[in-house]
Amino acid sequence: MKGLFFITSNKGKAVESKELFSKSGIDVVQKNLGYPEIKANTLDEVAFFGAEFVKNKIDQPFFLEDAGLFIDALNGFPGVYSAYVFHSIGCKGILKLMKDVENRNATFRSVIAYCETGKEPVIIIGECKGAISEKEIGKNGFGYDPIFIPKGQKRTFAQMETDEKNKFSHRGKSLHKLLDFFKRR
Amino acid sequence: MKGLFFITSNKGKAVESKELFSKSGIDVVQKNLGYPEIKANTLDEVAFFGAEFVKNKIDQPFFLEDAGLFIDALNGFPGVYSAYVFHSIGCKGILKLMKDVENRNATFRSVIAYCETGKEPVIIIGECKGAISEKEIGKNGFGYDPIFIPKGQKRTFAQMETDEKNKFSHRGKSLHKLLDFFKRR
Repeated sequence: MKGLFFITSNKGKAVESKELFSKSGIDVVQKNLGYPEIKANTLDEVAFFGAEFVKNKIDQPFFLEDAGLFIDALNGFPGVYSAYVFHSIGCKGILKLMKDVENRNATFRSVIAYCETGKEPVIIIGECKGAISEKEIGKNGFGYDPIFIPKGQKRTFAQMETDEKNKFSHRGKSLHKLLDFFKRR
Repeated sequence: MKGLFFITSNKGKAVESKELFSKSGIDVVQKNLGYPEIKANTLDEVAFFGAEFVKNKIDQPFFLEDAGLFIDALNGFPGVYSAYVFHSIGCKGILKLMKDVENRNATFRSVIAYCETGKEPVIIIGECKGAISEKEIGKNGFGYDPIFIPKGQKRTFAQMETDEKNKFSHRGKSLHKLLDFFKRR
């Protein structure tokens, strides 16, 4: 495979996938094309709907990705609306909502929709369990990385280099699964 | 006008519009049809997109409505995602985010998309300025009513009867404008 388009406006996501795929000789090309996102209950629906829209505009293999942070004590909030919530109340808002909350369990989910010309999108899911930290720590990554500690680790995603984060992260897992999908064929 | 369909799954909204329109001899009929809601930056886009979808499924005049609570100190949160946020963190979550926040200004917005067979949807906007209360008060209404005090008032929407709430409220205003629209023709 020569070039693989990643339809996203998010530089951080593009960096993570470029780094991971380059090791397999695949050149990920970020394409900020834009697509309508529906208000849905699951990331799968958002990604599928987005891919169905993009596939009519592009004649090369591409993928797009939707991710969300689901916090147990907040009934899954911010979930499907993680990006919007991040841009309004941010990590500080989440930490305020989690003040004095004992159960800090949370799950980061990543859903990739991969699509080839004339075919239906393939949906691939990656998940990373962990906990919400007591304060923001670390300068790497983006979004909720400074407040998420993956299970079995002591540092937040924002304290890790891209390479290390990709080993644990939801997106690292979904990207690895996409690579496996290519290799099996 | 005989019957006017209100496409909504929200009983509270249906009650408010029935009460207001019945005074003008218009019978509002709630229809829980369902329509896709897009992730958008404005309520207008959500309502317009919804109406465009519904108008192909129904051959009678109808309206649908999207509403949101925009809190100044939270950069407009929960805004376009008010319903989702209500069902995850609720009024309690909003009050926690507003703890020790001095600027409690907020605006309730209601956007109606009214549509007749074969025509483009008409967009009508109602707004109500007010403040977030320090605690939940009142049992009437629904959603964020127990924590919203309209400007110039001392009680929350949830402490008012439907008739009184309709005088101040965002939805009362957009519904009145829809009535005016009918009368002008």
